[in-house]
Amino acid sequence: MHHAQSIARLITELGKLPGVGPKTAQRLTYHLLNSPRENSLALSKAIREAVDKVTYCSVCSNFTDIDPCFICRDEKRDKSIICVVEEPGDIVAIEKTREYKGHYHVLQGIISPIDGIGPEQLKVKELLARITHQPKDNLEVIIALGSSVEGEATSMYLAKILRPLGIKVTRIAHGLPVGGALEYADEVTLAKAFEGRIELF
Amino acid sequence: MHHAQSIARLITELGKLPGVGPKTAQRLTYHLLNSPRENSLALSKAIREAVDKVTYCSVCSNFTDIDPCFICRDEKRDKSIICVVEEPGDIVAIEKTREYKGHYHVLQGIISPIDGIGPEQLKVKELLARITHQPKDNLEVIIALGSSVEGEATSMYLAKILRPLGIKVTRIAHGLPVGGALEYADEVTLAKAFEGRIELF
Repeated sequence: MHHAQSIARLITELGKLPGVGPKTAQRLTYHLLNSPRENSLALSKAIREAVDKVTYCSVCSNFTDIDPCFICRDEKRDKSIICVVEEPGDIVAIEKTREYKGHYHVLQGIISPIDGIGPEQLKVKELLARITHQPKDNLEVIIALGSSVEGEATSMYLAKILRPLGIKVTRIAHGLPVGGALEYADEVTLAKAFEGRIELF
Repeated sequence: MHHAQSIARLITELGKLPGVGPKTAQRLTYHLLNSPRENSLALSKAIREAVDKVTYCSVCSNFTDIDPCFICRDEKRDKSIICVVEEPGDIVAIEKTREYKGHYHVLQGIISPIDGIGPEQLKVKELLARITHQPKDNLEVIIALGSSVEGEATSMYLAKILRPLGIKVTRIAHGLPVGGALEYADEVTLAKAFEGRIELF
């Protein structure tokens, strides 16, 4: 025992964060103890408030502190496009492009039999439920999942259940990243880039 | 604005921690929101309790939640040796060796004119105060500071004010790290290793 009890406890709790080992946890603890009291308490309060207030949006399953979330409430967004993503962080990444003006749906995971995650563990029935409430002839579901085996399997699964409902299902392009040199691209990415080639006008 | 308010606030507060950039702050925030509620609240509570309870030991200036700290209270430790360190974390490192059984004194910094830190900003007068209360003929002060210019200057300063009081002042050895190969040692370390050579019996 090299620490006072409340210091040891803080090191333990910080050490539970992803990517924070014992040394980093100790460094962060000393930082919090050396910081002005109100700064450290602000972090404590922010955690408590986020945990108390944040819930899942009843429409898109994104994190929100007001239900429905600010994207689902936004009347200016296009209700006829729903972009399906794995996690809330993916929405942040897409929003930063400032290109997409449709709605989202967060699956909260992808199908992964090895981890025991099937469609029932994901927000798939919530996706189907919200779709039943809107006209399907003009609806497009864009699947924006990673190109891992699990991502591909989840995309296929969603396409299989959505297409019979008369919904247009697309998925984002996989290919050469912008600024990426051809010679350094891996073969799978390059194969996808050829497969997804488009005609020039 | 890509986040709900209380999520944005938590990302901001986590982003103030050293070594935590905006992306890591977002990842940690989502981790806390995805974790069981009681785990995240445990971190919030641990921060608040540490900030509320932890103070500086009135004897050695180490962080503690009971004054004097558990090391200064320990009757089994040798009161005739005081090891001077820069920060509380240094004590943890030395305690892990399980070799040192004396007391400590935390300077809470080192002399660094460029940062405006002189002896007055450090816990030097507290060191002198505790020394006046004990017999000086048998007392040893071990200076365990880094070998940076500031560390050396602080060591020299302490030796200069402690020696006239009849106190034995030593400093930890600088040299080749155990397991370190001679050919990869930098020249300053190697020079120190020669300077600090000891006779073999």
